[in-house]
Amino acid sequence: MSPSSLDELIDALRCLPGVGPKSAQRMAYHLLQRDQRGAQRLALALDHALKVIRHCARCNNFTEDEVCERCLSAKRDAALLCVVEMPADLNMLEQTHAYRGMYYVLMGRISPLDGIGPKELRLDKLLARAADGMVQEVILATNFTNEGEATAHYLGEMLRARGLAVSRIARGLPVGGEIEHTDAGTIAQALVERRPL
Amino acid sequence: MSPSSLDELIDALRCLPGVGPKSAQRMAYHLLQRDQRGAQRLALALDHALKVIRHCARCNNFTEDEVCERCLSAKRDAALLCVVEMPADLNMLEQTHAYRGMYYVLMGRISPLDGIGPKELRLDKLLARAADGMVQEVILATNFTNEGEATAHYLGEMLRARGLAVSRIARGLPVGGEIEHTDAGTIAQALVERRPL
Repeated sequence: MSPSSLDELIDALRCLPGVGPKSAQRMAYHLLQRDQRGAQRLALALDHALKVIRHCARCNNFTEDEVCERCLSAKRDAALLCVVEMPADLNMLEQTHAYRGMYYVLMGRISPLDGIGPKELRLDKLLARAADGMVQEVILATNFTNEGEATAHYLGEMLRARGLAVSRIARGLPVGGEIEHTDAGTIAQALVERRPL
Repeated sequence: MSPSSLDELIDALRCLPGVGPKSAQRMAYHLLQRDQRGAQRLALALDHALKVIRHCARCNNFTEDEVCERCLSAKRDAALLCVVEMPADLNMLEQTHAYRGMYYVLMGRISPLDGIGPKELRLDKLLARAADGMVQEVILATNFTNEGEATAHYLGEMLRARGLAVSRIARGLPVGGEIEHTDAGTIAQALVERRPL
């Protein structure tokens, strides 16, 4: 006997990742009871974003333009192409100010359990981007999770087969890391990948 | 350098309870990348709900009508008025099929830390409802949390001062409850509120 528009709102909120029936209900009550302005703002923001946001033709990141500002920048090194999983990863790399090359955002990772394979990630777009004649090295900066590693492995094979130089960001102890408090897997990798001084 | 419509969407998602900057970002990426249809549906559902949902003039629950179906039902006992915090509580009580009286939904609880006092809960509307001449007993079914208890205490004083009979739902062991696995507070209450057999 609850109004159908409320049921529909609760149901629609479940499209958000990590939101189950109970959270969706709590969210709907909160919006209707305590934050109608926020709800209106969210409706408009969703609508607007869906209308104007698309993928950059070069780096695949979200943008409102055909090619994003970063890809058009003349100040960046077109010989380096760094591949990341998500825009959040790109933002973290940018915050380091340690990289001035170009990016490619996969918008995901190979994840067979979620039905995401090379086709779903549209890796042909990355291949075309990497084969623009300017790129000399592709840096794989996917996560060091199982899925990120599998993605890097697959991409490495694929890009090397096309004659491109491929590298992977380093694994090891974090800055300030103490051996006593680091997991064994990381220590083992730091040993294997040790560098001459 | 991320598009402003994306930043605005991430910001707008933070109006949802329990959603911080990281979750909002993950939600925005998910909607744009994997569930544009869901996002469109959510925008429409929000917009529609904001337009049509209001509070029942009698029970204060969400409804699309002036007075909700339940309040208009001739099959319910108009002498009993059960006060609950949220619509979800009302739904749980209805599922028991043990109550056929009327309801009043506070849409919250007295919570000084959140700045919600008697005025913010608009308790005058409950007073007017309880003083309709039909109601003979008001059953307080707020939660047994600190805030729910404080709300029940306040409502009890207020309603009794107006000559209404007031009761509180019982505390005790749950059905199937074992003393060994019940918290001390509940056992103590069950002892104090023991009933003659």
